[in-house]
Amino acid sequence: LNAEDEGEVRALVKPLHPADIADLFEQLDADHRTALTTALGRDLNADVLAEMNDWVRDEVVGELAPEHVAEAVSEMDTDDAVALIEELEPAEQEAVLDELSADDRVAIETALSYPEESAGRLMQRELIAVPEHWTIAQVLDFLQTARDDVTDFWEIFVVSPEHKPLGTMRLSWLLTAPRWLGVSDVMQRQQTLIPVDLDQEEVALRFQKYALISAAVVDRDGRLAGVITADDIVHIIAEEAGEDILKLSGAGDGDIFEPVVDSYKARVRWLIANLLTGIVSASIIASFGATIEKMVVLAALSPIVASIGGNTGNQTMAVIVRALATGQMTNANTRRTILREAAVAFLNGVTIALLLGTGVALLFSNAQLGGVIAAATVFNLIIAGLAGVMVPLGLKRLGVDPAVASSVFVTMITDSMGFLLFLGFATASGLAA
Amino acid sequence: LNAEDEGEVRALVKPLHPADIADLFEQLDADHRTALTTALGRDLNADVLAEMNDWVRDEVVGELAPEHVAEAVSEMDTDDAVALIEELEPAEQEAVLDELSADDRVAIETALSYPEESAGRLMQRELIAVPEHWTIAQVLDFLQTARDDVTDFWEIFVVSPEHKPLGTMRLSWLLTAPRWLGVSDVMQRQQTLIPVDLDQEEVALRFQKYALISAAVVDRDGRLAGVITADDIVHIIAEEAGEDILKLSGAGDGDIFEPVVDSYKARVRWLIANLLTGIVSASIIASFGATIEKMVVLAALSPIVASIGGNTGNQTMAVIVRALATGQMTNANTRRTILREAAVAFLNGVTIALLLGTGVALLFSNAQLGGVIAAATVFNLIIAGLAGVMVPLGLKRLGVDPAVASSVFVTMITDSMGFLLFLGFATASGLAA
Repeated sequence: LNAEDEGEVRALVKPLHPADIADLFEQLDADHRTALTTALGRDLNADVLAEMNDWVRDEVVGELAPEHVAEAVSEMDTDDAVALIEELEPAEQEAVLDELSADDRVAIETALSYPEESAGRLMQRELIAVPEHWTIAQVLDFLQTARDDVTDFWEIFVVSPEHKPLGTMRLSWLLTAPRWLGVSDVMQRQQTLIPVDLDQEEVALRFQKYALISAAVVDRDGRLAGVITADDIVHIIAEEAGEDILKLSGAGDGDIFEPVVDSYKARVRWLIANLLTGIVSASIIASFGATIEKMVVLAALSPIVASIGGNTGNQTMAVIVRALATGQMTNANTRRTILREAAVAFLNGVTIALLLGTGVALLFSNAQLGGVIAAATVFNLIIAGLAGVMVPLGLKRLGVDPAVASSVFVTMITDSMGFLLFLGFATASGLAA
Repeated sequence: LNAEDEGEVRALVKPLHPADIADLFEQLDADHRTALTTALGRDLNADVLAEMNDWVRDEVVGELAPEHVAEAVSEMDTDDAVALIEELEPAEQEAVLDELSADDRVAIETALSYPEESAGRLMQRELIAVPEHWTIAQVLDFLQTARDDVTDFWEIFVVSPEHKPLGTMRLSWLLTAPRWLGVSDVMQRQQTLIPVDLDQEEVALRFQKYALISAAVVDRDGRLAGVITADDIVHIIAEEAGEDILKLSGAGDGDIFEPVVDSYKARVRWLIANLLTGIVSASIIASFGATIEKMVVLAALSPIVASIGGNTGNQTMAVIVRALATGQMTNANTRRTILREAAVAFLNGVTIALLLGTGVALLFSNAQLGGVIAAATVFNLIIAGLAGVMVPLGLKRLGVDPAVASSVFVTMITDSMGFLLFLGFATASGLAA
């Protein structure tokens, strides 16, 4: 990738699929990315930029002239254009918007006026809408003339004179229907309409639930404003489910392309929170100092009770966070789910307590020590199972994202209860007297 | 939902969208599900069953007569039919297959001959294929006659006389192209072909990467065998990403509808594995018994070092597991990613060590104790960051699913190193002498 190879690089890269060129950028380090950006020049077009990872695109776009970015943006569908522009710094954003034609500029500014991660930002405005009184033949003729105005489409929307959606026709119906039939005979009136303000996670759930390929977006007055297609939703779903994993682990929403300082900031917050919960556990252990001094093996065994509890809590929490995210868990089955998780935790608790209690009793030739650790384990695992359901559920009801904050609370509960139960039972039973 | 209300129930439920009826089943408990199954009778059709959660559908289908199930199956596209039948017990499966027409039976048995979770099971065989030498007008006329044979379709496939795919035409191109043009002028030759044996996770990645709405599936001889559409992929992506969360937490692949005993079995294995890693940590602590006896506060502080390490390891591991699952991480950027994660872990380590070390030094008026815990924290967090990358990466290279097994190893490393470093430094520095 030296300067003299530019022509060669361009010749090698140009025949690739835009998604593969975008992948290539992701594989390179920062210096080579700059070199490739320069080498490709104008061949670094809308399709390539649209396919690039957000962090990598930020870096690449930062090196392009605003006119170059504006040219790429004007070739994109509104949804891709908005995805690119919304990530820019305000000054860069302004510079790029200034270079756009008035039409494109208005389209993008309208989209940016909708909340982040809402349907309004995901939709493309390019769509085909026809009146209800047309025949299929009229629609077919209209499409022959509309040739140059639209990109790919998968459904045709039937609208009232006020541009309110009345129904949809999949293109396969249009192609197989007798041509003398009316639009109103062929269209489906049952529609899944997406309000322009709807959060993208909700949009994705509706696509999943109703197995949609595309869906109409309506503005606040109920008029047809745009269309969202399944290929965009595929990205959203992968993103949202992936984000839940990262959030649960306290890693923010970063990926391996996020700048190091951003990753540091996102993660250190949760480590500090974890430090505070660690202090709670440490205080509990310290308060049993006298017992531990008499029987130091208690200090070695207590982390096992805490850690198994943490594990059980995490298992339940992961299941519940997914159930809440996918809409499986509702008021109707909350009670049943809590009982279900308590039952699983109880079975796990008894199994682990038997193994651990027997092992400890034999190893230390001390049946009482085995009994104490077994009892502490059963109770801590039941508490862990309940905490794994109640914490995410409670956070959701308070309007907090359960994926983000559940871990800290569940870990605090299972850790502190693990130490408290084990050391408490040991002290109360006079084990170390 | 008493017997006498059956008519009323049916009247209430029937007008709902099939996906909403399926949801209703998911909300009910087992007794009410049985009652609703009886009440709906034949109205419990293909569309409703196709939308139901796997565990719930198993339960409902178990109560239906094989003829009823066979009737529903014969109305489904092959992909939905296979999804239903593959979950049945072998005897039930046989009974249902016996009730099907010869055509349907062959189609489903062929699909079942492909590996589980492969493209061959996901595809539907219903599709439109045309020869290359036709004109657009001929294709349009053909579709008028093909009306009754196929369900919805989104693309038309162009095939050679040997039925090998040559290209695709999106329906919107067909509708807007001049009718006198040839198929070969309109079709796109660059295709994303899916081999029939490809794993569904790979299929989903290709749909994501190339923003596909539908894609051709080819058999082992390269002939067009079926088509996969984005609405099915939406389910797969949600499922796979959701599974990664559950696997990382050691909860198997269950959801809130999984029978309690299955959940117990899936989860207890990981708790037992965790118990074994807990024994490693306990042995390390026990080996420092003499030090702890002299200075019991070490027992209270050591779990903090272990726990913060576990947290750091989990953050990195979540990022890496996602990067591996989405194909972001490749040989080209592995070294860069390891350095990146080490850098983030180092920054986190220094921050937490400063906070924890200063706090401990002030609280116990013991600068040496503060220094020991700070040093142990920095080292453990760097180890945790490296383990968070290397463990999933190593498992992936060994052909093991990194989401399933990473947690146990990472936790074992961060826990045992946390105790070893802190208690080791304390002993070596003569802190408790």
